[in-house]
Amino acid sequence: MRPTVEPPIRIRGLEYGGQKPLFCIPIVPRDLAELTAQAEVAHSLKPDLVEFRADFLTNLAVSSLVDAVRLLRSIATDEAIIFTLRAKNEGGAQEVPQYLRRTLIEAVLRSKTIDIVDLELANDREFLGSLMPIAKEYGIPVILALHDFEGTPSNDQLLAKIDAMRLQGADIAKIAVMPRTADDVLRLFHVTAAARKLYPHLPLVTMSMGALGSITRVAGFLYGSDMSFALGKTGSAPGQIPIEDARKMSALLLRYS
Amino acid sequence: MRPTVEPPIRIRGLEYGGQKPLFCIPIVPRDLAELTAQAEVAHSLKPDLVEFRADFLTNLAVSSLVDAVRLLRSIATDEAIIFTLRAKNEGGAQEVPQYLRRTLIEAVLRSKTIDIVDLELANDREFLGSLMPIAKEYGIPVILALHDFEGTPSNDQLLAKIDAMRLQGADIAKIAVMPRTADDVLRLFHVTAAARKLYPHLPLVTMSMGALGSITRVAGFLYGSDMSFALGKTGSAPGQIPIEDARKMSALLLRYS
Repeated sequence: MRPTVEPPIRIRGLEYGGQKPLFCIPIVPRDLAELTAQAEVAHSLKPDLVEFRADFLTNLAVSSLVDAVRLLRSIATDEAIIFTLRAKNEGGAQEVPQYLRRTLIEAVLRSKTIDIVDLELANDREFLGSLMPIAKEYGIPVILALHDFEGTPSNDQLLAKIDAMRLQGADIAKIAVMPRTADDVLRLFHVTAAARKLYPHLPLVTMSMGALGSITRVAGFLYGSDMSFALGKTGSAPGQIPIEDARKMSALLLRYS
Repeated sequence: MRPTVEPPIRIRGLEYGGQKPLFCIPIVPRDLAELTAQAEVAHSLKPDLVEFRADFLTNLAVSSLVDAVRLLRSIATDEAIIFTLRAKNEGGAQEVPQYLRRTLIEAVLRSKTIDIVDLELANDREFLGSLMPIAKEYGIPVILALHDFEGTPSNDQLLAKIDAMRLQGADIAKIAVMPRTADDVLRLFHVTAAARKLYPHLPLVTMSMGALGSITRVAGFLYGSDMSFALGKTGSAPGQIPIEDARKMSALLLRYS
């Protein structure tokens, strides 16, 4: 038994926030050939979701980006697609001017090919304020995310961020932080459990990154994280575990809990 | 990588406190027939240790107890044997007068058939003060233990108990507590990591009991617990996981950490 969302939300046939732990394989292609290869590997591993990290693409023209998303859709026939175009300072793979990033994400939202969009909470109000209503218009759930690749903010700071995500209309709140100590990892679990209790209707995805934090990728479900990123062919963040092992471990942990 | 003891201690060929996680199967026989059956099942599962919970025996005469331990030794040819004769108020299976319990444990120590003895820290000074020198004389490492089947004391209380065990000459400090919340489980991990840091030479075995705490039985190794109790045929405490699954999970967690 794990603390579920009340009630879980439905995304493309998935129950997000239910008893079943969800796994997402990120793909990080530089071009359409890599996209095809990575998406086919991911698809063969039957993840619940795939995340398209579009910031890895070399060609970020609007029309070619939409073509890339459509290509992914044609391969990822069963998976929900998370679309993410991260800015450099959010851990993205390249510098993209904010106005261009906004335009690209809007085009993808309007293309009706994706199931979830991931946006960093730290973006300016104009950016979020223009994109979130479009996502809502198209019925696309929004992940608002906090990434910290340097450390793990205090429990109070993290809970305040989750509350801010909720207040800004996040459908899913995401916290990805870097631990420096074992206690930082335990705090991430604590914050997750506290957030699930405080906001029982808010789906979550939380993780402590790196090898030290890898336990959160399989045990986070016990404390209220609803999804975990796992490895297909190529990871997108340190500490990700191959999906077969991650699935096995989570299933066993949940069986005995 | 996990936080090991510096240096690990050697017990019957085992490295207690090294990188390799150790698993102990408890046996809880009422008579010699059950002892044989449970010990054979345990032995076939190749645990690192077996714990003989002698308080389950119906016949607790000195000579028959020593016979029982010798029988176990003849079956458990490769495992280290922990001998435990728990009092009722320590979670034991029956009421045994303290003077008789002392006599029985002394006889087993002098029989040179066991590898480790488990004694509750809360015993009177006379009890521990008479048995611990005998264990030392025979080169038998002593586990001093705290069991709390009702709850999880505060972090400071738990760390004070571990320090008291160390000061009283424990070779291994054991903490087994019952969680009421997910946070109690996380605190047990925290206390374990803190104790390993504070007392780097002190081997530990810590666990949070029940289904809620079952993660500690496979992930405790990451935080400084050196051993875990797992199920053979019959468990001795709630939350124990069958040894094959426990081994698999711990190995995977350690591989990615």
